[in-house]
Amino acid sequence: MQDESRGGASTSIWLGAPLEQLPTPALTLEQATMRRNAERMRERCRALGLRLRPHVKTHKTLEGAELATGGTRRGIVVSTLAEARFFAAGGFDDILYAYPLPGGRLEECAALAQRLQTFQLLLDSPRALGLLRQHPLPAGKRWLVWLKLDCGNGRAGVRPTDPGAVALARAIAEEAPEEVTLVGVYAHCGDTYGCRDVPAIQAIARATAAAVLDFVTALRRAGVPCPQASIGSTPSCSHPVPEMAQLTELHPGNYLFYDLQQTLLGSCHPEDVAIRVLTRVIGHYPHRNQLLVDCGWAALSLHGRDQAPTGCAAIEGHPQLRLVGLTQEHGQVEAVDGRLDFGRFPLGSILALIPFHACATAAMHPVYYVHAGGKVVELWHPVRGW
Amino acid sequence: MQDESRGGASTSIWLGAPLEQLPTPALTLEQATMRRNAERMRERCRALGLRLRPHVKTHKTLEGAELATGGTRRGIVVSTLAEARFFAAGGFDDILYAYPLPGGRLEECAALAQRLQTFQLLLDSPRALGLLRQHPLPAGKRWLVWLKLDCGNGRAGVRPTDPGAVALARAIAEEAPEEVTLVGVYAHCGDTYGCRDVPAIQAIARATAAAVLDFVTALRRAGVPCPQASIGSTPSCSHPVPEMAQLTELHPGNYLFYDLQQTLLGSCHPEDVAIRVLTRVIGHYPHRNQLLVDCGWAALSLHGRDQAPTGCAAIEGHPQLRLVGLTQEHGQVEAVDGRLDFGRFPLGSILALIPFHACATAAMHPVYYVHAGGKVVELWHPVRGW
Repeated sequence: MQDESRGGASTSIWLGAPLEQLPTPALTLEQATMRRNAERMRERCRALGLRLRPHVKTHKTLEGAELATGGTRRGIVVSTLAEARFFAAGGFDDILYAYPLPGGRLEECAALAQRLQTFQLLLDSPRALGLLRQHPLPAGKRWLVWLKLDCGNGRAGVRPTDPGAVALARAIAEEAPEEVTLVGVYAHCGDTYGCRDVPAIQAIARATAAAVLDFVTALRRAGVPCPQASIGSTPSCSHPVPEMAQLTELHPGNYLFYDLQQTLLGSCHPEDVAIRVLTRVIGHYPHRNQLLVDCGWAALSLHGRDQAPTGCAAIEGHPQLRLVGLTQEHGQVEAVDGRLDFGRFPLGSILALIPFHACATAAMHPVYYVHAGGKVVELWHPVRGW
Repeated sequence: MQDESRGGASTSIWLGAPLEQLPTPALTLEQATMRRNAERMRERCRALGLRLRPHVKTHKTLEGAELATGGTRRGIVVSTLAEARFFAAGGFDDILYAYPLPGGRLEECAALAQRLQTFQLLLDSPRALGLLRQHPLPAGKRWLVWLKLDCGNGRAGVRPTDPGAVALARAIAEEAPEEVTLVGVYAHCGDTYGCRDVPAIQAIARATAAAVLDFVTALRRAGVPCPQASIGSTPSCSHPVPEMAQLTELHPGNYLFYDLQQTLLGSCHPEDVAIRVLTRVIGHYPHRNQLLVDCGWAALSLHGRDQAPTGCAAIEGHPQLRLVGLTQEHGQVEAVDGRLDFGRFPLGSILALIPFHACATAAMHPVYYVHAGGKVVELWHPVRGW
């Protein structure tokens, strides 16, 4: 997919290559691990009687979404219009654009609604509803709307306890039933990322589910039909609580890759993390007890710098090493304590970095190398932009 | 350049559009400011009698490099092989790949050396020289090599006071004169980024220039010809010291855009910063005194989060506002103190963010919107990858 005129060597030559031949830095994904992560999340949802609507923002690839949907290509969440168009063009449908409706981009939303069988929007204000009313879809199509609830995350959404929340849901459902339909309520429990253990995450999941379900009950009592209720976040969905079975959908995303942050949160075991950034040793600097590697923030991001004991990444198989400095294309590696054994890390040798935040690291790469049996078996090309 | 099948709407439709019509988040560059920055840096180098060899890693675009080279398309620094190929394909020559020679990629370097009149490499170890010796270029071509010096920055490079440094320079110059040529010595004074004011930056520039020049003198005494001496970093080159006139080249890069960090360092005035990220207000949350904007770390990066009083970006014209939280596609804006006047920031209104670190922000965008007179006049598409 990369174009030589844009500087990239063709990446297709790497299909079949052993990982250790890849040019570095290289983002790699272990196929078996992703498949297991995808299957486990589907199984969790099956056990709860819920639909899984995977969020695609971590990987932004057709292949990743195919895996996450179990091959149905139906029922995903996107967070940009570029993603919505990309997945629509790639044969996906039932796409929920879970982002506060941007006023200036109604035409793009209308085009997606026309192109897809089911294109869904999210809003959290009467003004956004007003915008939809000003741009009705052609006959036979209605705006399919989820009401975004803020159940403690403190980002987008109307608080379910806000007196205006029921009124807004009612307005979506009833104001213009030929133009706008209330599909459901949607909450993101991103506040789970501030937790330190699984019980704390589960407490948030429980509280979020309860807040959403109480709101749906209040709507029912008020005579407002609200068929769907969805919550998500990889920490909460990796250890679901029974109360979540009352919802209709879950929408985690990161779990396909997992990462160091999720390991620290308890969402997964280290062996569940499918993503690595391969990097090579490009310098020995014994006078300051450091190695230099060819992975800087341009290939890793700075996420986690001040949050994890190992900084932006752990170095697989080498707990005695840490990544201490990242500039654009260089990383500095030193010993946690004592002298570095430079003989173990000759120039050109490969280190595998386990990124703190997979979403951020993936955003830096034009291609992901998917591997099985130590060889590249697929190349995934993510969409970017807005 | 963007391809609909990859999710991006065509960006060419935005040529001629007023900035306020652009879809957000959008990276914008003020043409007149960049031209002035380019001209001033050229003028500084002219005044010192030095050649300017602009580093292209901040913008990674043909247009930016054309501007920085004053239209010659000759004499640039790149930090990845993807950049080297991109600029070679775009008609540039005299390209210095200023990165510790990656052992596994000699074939790519050889292809560039064959394709270009002048493709130059950098190394800092006898082993890297050995690699070049094992891969001689065809007759008529020699490896053109700069020796990387570490004059206090503490990243790549051999310390000029290291007894091995002169020996390595001599080996490059004399070991195989038909195969390898010593072009010069190269130092990056990245340690200027840790300074708090211009005098401190100038002290580092002075020390770096002196260390480089002392080393060249030592080489001359040892009978080793070393024609070129280059140092760079935008902070040092924005306020050059007279001692730098003894060098032959400077190689700053960030100055074409500048950014909030450079303003804080004293490298430029606020009006010299050409880069912005335009973002729109997408939510009002009076109960927590916050606005939500459609710019998250995916459009800004997290650089500067803990380094600048305003975090990852300043909000142009609104010193009473600050960006307090960034998730992938959302930014949270609040008042520095007191109540936010929501009436001043209606949904859909645009804020212009001045990024802390232009290199990091530019890396997040597939297109830059260059503007003059309030309208888009050019679209720049950067290279990425390695």
